[in-house]
Amino acid sequence: MARATRTRRAGGNGHNGKTRRIDAAQSRTQTERSSDGDLLPPARTAGPAESRRPVAGRLIIIGGHEDREKDSERLILREVTGCTKGGRVIVCTVASDVPGELWPEYQRTFQELGCEDVVHLDIERRADLLLNPSLDLFEGADVFFFTGGAQLKITTRLAGTRLCAALEEFYRRGGTVAGTSAGASVMAETMLVSGVSGETHRIGETLQMAPGLGFLRDTIIDQHFAERGRIGRLLGAVAQNPRFIGLGIDENTAIIVEREESFTVVGSGAVYVADAEDVTYTNVAEEESERTLSLFNVRLHVLSQGDSFDLRTRRPAHGFAKTLERKLDRSEHFPGAEATH
Amino acid sequence: MARATRTRRAGGNGHNGKTRRIDAAQSRTQTERSSDGDLLPPARTAGPAESRRPVAGRLIIIGGHEDREKDSERLILREVTGCTKGGRVIVCTVASDVPGELWPEYQRTFQELGCEDVVHLDIERRADLLLNPSLDLFEGADVFFFTGGAQLKITTRLAGTRLCAALEEFYRRGGTVAGTSAGASVMAETMLVSGVSGETHRIGETLQMAPGLGFLRDTIIDQHFAERGRIGRLLGAVAQNPRFIGLGIDENTAIIVEREESFTVVGSGAVYVADAEDVTYTNVAEEESERTLSLFNVRLHVLSQGDSFDLRTRRPAHGFAKTLERKLDRSEHFPGAEATH
Repeated sequence: MARATRTRRAGGNGHNGKTRRIDAAQSRTQTERSSDGDLLPPARTAGPAESRRPVAGRLIIIGGHEDREKDSERLILREVTGCTKGGRVIVCTVASDVPGELWPEYQRTFQELGCEDVVHLDIERRADLLLNPSLDLFEGADVFFFTGGAQLKITTRLAGTRLCAALEEFYRRGGTVAGTSAGASVMAETMLVSGVSGETHRIGETLQMAPGLGFLRDTIIDQHFAERGRIGRLLGAVAQNPRFIGLGIDENTAIIVEREESFTVVGSGAVYVADAEDVTYTNVAEEESERTLSLFNVRLHVLSQGDSFDLRTRRPAHGFAKTLERKLDRSEHFPGAEATH
Repeated sequence: MARATRTRRAGGNGHNGKTRRIDAAQSRTQTERSSDGDLLPPARTAGPAESRRPVAGRLIIIGGHEDREKDSERLILREVTGCTKGGRVIVCTVASDVPGELWPEYQRTFQELGCEDVVHLDIERRADLLLNPSLDLFEGADVFFFTGGAQLKITTRLAGTRLCAALEEFYRRGGTVAGTSAGASVMAETMLVSGVSGETHRIGETLQMAPGLGFLRDTIIDQHFAERGRIGRLLGAVAQNPRFIGLGIDENTAIIVEREESFTVVGSGAVYVADAEDVTYTNVAEEESERTLSLFNVRLHVLSQGDSFDLRTRRPAHGFAKTLERKLDRSEHFPGAEATH
């Protein structure tokens, strides 16, 4: 069931919001059915040609386990709420097995950070979304936030639907799309689905990749990066196509991508950029299963808070962490009053 | 107590060897004592000038957990025994808390691989080694092997003793010095002692380094590399002095260093070479504790079995794993008959 729960805070009371539910049953008449009862495919609102238009929006791609505790800094989620201009935040739990646990946590956190209009989107079955695209979710929205879970739940249920096309349109027109953990991986053109952590990549080993939502081109994104020892699998992925930049994002760390051009790092960990452009040799195309990866001459950057990276020139620049932290301090006192980027 | 247990196999029966024990009490008369009973420092046999002489020996530096099971390939330990020419193998368990468990395992393994003269060296107290340097251990020796354990146990008990000087001399004259895990780290000029695994390096964080045995110059060596997610701490180490090449060695994987000039990889995992020579920026010298590492433009190579690396030019070359494996197959049938390097 596709369900959207909107909570508006009345008089600033975050725990007393109104709730609206939308599900497939309410809007079945909007959708045609074929004679055997199968759903007809929905009309696409944006095709390949449209998707090449310049992007005005922002991506916030989080390596998982972002700080949500009330008495902590919550730097990253403050970056997210800093992107609202009084508008709606949509929390999409489609990736998760426990949406009922995640949603109230994020709802409370975003409300504590000053957001008045926080809406829940869960998609239990793709069919429900086909029947009821819930496009009105984006009316007045500033931020769309993917929680963690499993990457393939996001793409199998959401990708190719009218809602997903509307999400892309929202992003292209200037909206912020954020995602953590699985919600980070799906941002890429080709997403890393699974692979062994804490090991060097082996050629014959299953390193599962699949098409992602494609909001950030020419990248492969991995999360929980240093914590789960994932350098091996990220290098295994970029070795297969050096056009792609590998981005390994630590926990409680995020990249904020502006207009597909560059990103800045925020959070307590690091972002590893593996650029295979100058690679002189790899054995990854060899057919010997169980051979361990060889990969010569990768350019590796370790970026920490305030550092930035130009995705066009593939060059890092070091930043002004203190300036950033000051800005964030200010936005805590005046929630929503200042976008920090 | 410094104890050397030599086991000679009688008629090829590995479990029925003769045992000789040397301990401090037997040779106390060899060492002078000062009036208050303190031991006088031993005369050094090789000084700094001598240590610049060219090296004829070989290092086998193993990332830990090398395969020792009888029914497995034991590729790396066959490389070690391949360096014997019928001579002695000295197994030094000084790093370990459980030398009594490790020694019989390695003894059996080396005997199964065709070594007839396998000797045990444990050093319970440095004082015992000062009293009884056991220099005769090296008579007819081909290989000196450090087991795993704690790096600082090796250096605090062995470094600066006449036995250690004799070990260096043995290496310079063409002997093979092998070491696994802690025994790998000590080979470096500056050794990585401890640091957080599975995390990106933070500037204020304790990343403990100490002078190593210095057999391999200009390198910092880390082990259990991909398995324990140690890219963060290795980069934290090389960031502090880009002259040093960081070598991260996976488990059941080794580098075989010939004459300090180049090395070849053998084993099932990979060796990561982090070359910081072209680094354009790091924040590691900043005084802000708890800042996460920034490090731009590291050259990273992932080497697998058969690949080699020239330590002078800092260039990798890809190898001939199959040739190597064929050689090893042959040396299994004719143990000790062929050095594979």
